[in-house]
Amino acid sequence: MARDWASTLGVDADAEDVLEHFDTEWFRGRRYRHLGDARHGIERGTALVGDTVVRGYPSMPRALVLEPAVEVAFDGPVAVEEKLNGYNVRVARVDGDVLAFTRSGFVCPYTTRTVERLMDADAFFDDYPEHMLCGELVGPENPYTNHDYAEVETVCFSVFGIRHRETGAPMGVERRRDACGTYGFDSVAHFGTFAPSAAPAAARERIHDLNERGREGVVLKSTDGRRALKYTTSAIHRADLEHAFELPFEYGRDFVFTRVMREAFQAVEFEESDERVRERAQRLGEAILRPAVETIRSVEAGEPVGETHTIRGEPESIGDVLSYFRDQGLELHVERDERDDGERVVTFTKVARSTRDKTTYYLEGGTIDE
Amino acid sequence: MARDWASTLGVDADAEDVLEHFDTEWFRGRRYRHLGDARHGIERGTALVGDTVVRGYPSMPRALVLEPAVEVAFDGPVAVEEKLNGYNVRVARVDGDVLAFTRSGFVCPYTTRTVERLMDADAFFDDYPEHMLCGELVGPENPYTNHDYAEVETVCFSVFGIRHRETGAPMGVERRRDACGTYGFDSVAHFGTFAPSAAPAAARERIHDLNERGREGVVLKSTDGRRALKYTTSAIHRADLEHAFELPFEYGRDFVFTRVMREAFQAVEFEESDERVRERAQRLGEAILRPAVETIRSVEAGEPVGETHTIRGEPESIGDVLSYFRDQGLELHVERDERDDGERVVTFTKVARSTRDKTTYYLEGGTIDE
Repeated sequence: MARDWASTLGVDADAEDVLEHFDTEWFRGRRYRHLGDARHGIERGTALVGDTVVRGYPSMPRALVLEPAVEVAFDGPVAVEEKLNGYNVRVARVDGDVLAFTRSGFVCPYTTRTVERLMDADAFFDDYPEHMLCGELVGPENPYTNHDYAEVETVCFSVFGIRHRETGAPMGVERRRDACGTYGFDSVAHFGTFAPSAAPAAARERIHDLNERGREGVVLKSTDGRRALKYTTSAIHRADLEHAFELPFEYGRDFVFTRVMREAFQAVEFEESDERVRERAQRLGEAILRPAVETIRSVEAGEPVGETHTIRGEPESIGDVLSYFRDQGLELHVERDERDDGERVVTFTKVARSTRDKTTYYLEGGTIDE
Repeated sequence: MARDWASTLGVDADAEDVLEHFDTEWFRGRRYRHLGDARHGIERGTALVGDTVVRGYPSMPRALVLEPAVEVAFDGPVAVEEKLNGYNVRVARVDGDVLAFTRSGFVCPYTTRTVERLMDADAFFDDYPEHMLCGELVGPENPYTNHDYAEVETVCFSVFGIRHRETGAPMGVERRRDACGTYGFDSVAHFGTFAPSAAPAAARERIHDLNERGREGVVLKSTDGRRALKYTTSAIHRADLEHAFELPFEYGRDFVFTRVMREAFQAVEFEESDERVRERAQRLGEAILRPAVETIRSVEAGEPVGETHTIRGEPESIGDVLSYFRDQGLELHVERDERDDGERVVTFTKVARSTRDKTTYYLEGGTIDE
């Protein structure tokens, strides 16, 4: 018989009311439910597979000004680790199957296959059957993101957390890193553990270095893994904006203000000179305007606009992930669909309909009341 | 007895339903109602004074790409006039009193006094008792805006429309300009009337010139005054952004995306080279980031942040306008309050509470979930 999900999830509500917010999906003939948005205090991405709860990865608070935020957040040693720019994946073994859940709790067939290929997690799950591996999937060939890291040729899964899958309780940082070593998992880079008073300077030094290298940022964590704070580089703010303004009417409005303010607070905290602020501002402006101009020109030239991804693997899982996107209402434009040594390789574009349609509207003389 | 406002306003709704959206205000002991937001298809700013309707000024469509928008909008001669950056005011004579209505339909005591001082409108209203003058109030000393024009030392009212106050029907462009000449009113600059095919090039040439001079833009109008289109300069986009990011948490989020897109479409329509787009982008970035950095530094230094205005005039009207702002919930910080030759001169800041409070929150280590 079914569990009482409300009490399992620690929610003071009727189980029916809780469940109605979950979407039902199928994976390899198995029905499961997942929660696309946080509700009733339950983390976004929480999934129910059979009798098993796989708790969503909690959203992590962001510092806009590092030093005071560290002071407020931590009263003991602070581990500083790298924050990678890929997509958040949880890996759990349920009834013998290793499953990979995306941020929204979708069991992604492509990611599941990728994880199966990348790592052998059985020894870990034999020892920790009720835990899940939380990490970042990074690399050019995936259906979700496009950030390239020079050292990652195809795809890589870097663990940044091990948690109890039902309660979400995290393993401490040191124990988690040891476990990754023991079972042969990649870990995010660890830059050291510092007293709270020393952590901001250490993190800032790393931020400067990561920024030079075009990387995303750092996560600061209490050693028990329970408190965390993220802080990001100017390079990733610009990269986010370039991405957003390639498809301005899908992402521009939501992205731009937050990134501008991250830049502004960072410039103030770093006590930048007028000349440095000007440079930062100019680069910010370029990250915003130039992709928007390019995209309008592409639409004008009749070219398709959208996010292009290449994925490769077992034909069935490739088919499943494309079906999932289509079921979600995405319009896909397939540029390439080939077999390569038994694998299926597909290059496709998630068509950016808002950008295409609104840009066309204005180019054809449409007006706006503002 | 009261008029049937619903039918007077041409609305198919119950008069009670229409009236409930109007706010009641008093001006010199007279009660009136005004509509702060468009409702039931009635223009924002519509006011009911006694039995008189003063129709709101219609919102004007904006072109993002000038040439096709002109082609769509006009099938006859197009007048090109300057769009000024001040605040929109309608002037009507009701029961013998000349009243100045702001965009939201508020009878502004300060603006009414200013208009009384600036112009003698009685001869006009004797001949056109049911019309209203629509214009831009421009100049440094006003309680609403701060854009400075080199040639305007104090304040000036430039007429851009004459309309029937109840129906809103506009006078044709030529007749309106003649009337302004006859009655001695300032008019917005008129750059000529062109065939629709020639209007975009003419307007663009003006835009280049206005942009060089830091001015706002142009309005294109059918000669009967019924169809209109606005189009603005890069200079005003940047000025808007500088203003918005001086108080980022009041205005930044709403302003930034729209201005970026105006810039992007303009760069494409003007067929700018990569180098020109880069320059435009850099200047855009500076207009966004630098004021935000300055404001954060001001808050860090404990300085007040907000919009500062100086107004001068008859003590009673100065008091009335300050009371009106306080009644609207604004927090005012008065920096100067003096008598000067019988006039009261007040410099005050509309305190930007969101910017002050949110900036302080982040500077004190507050975090955000995004």
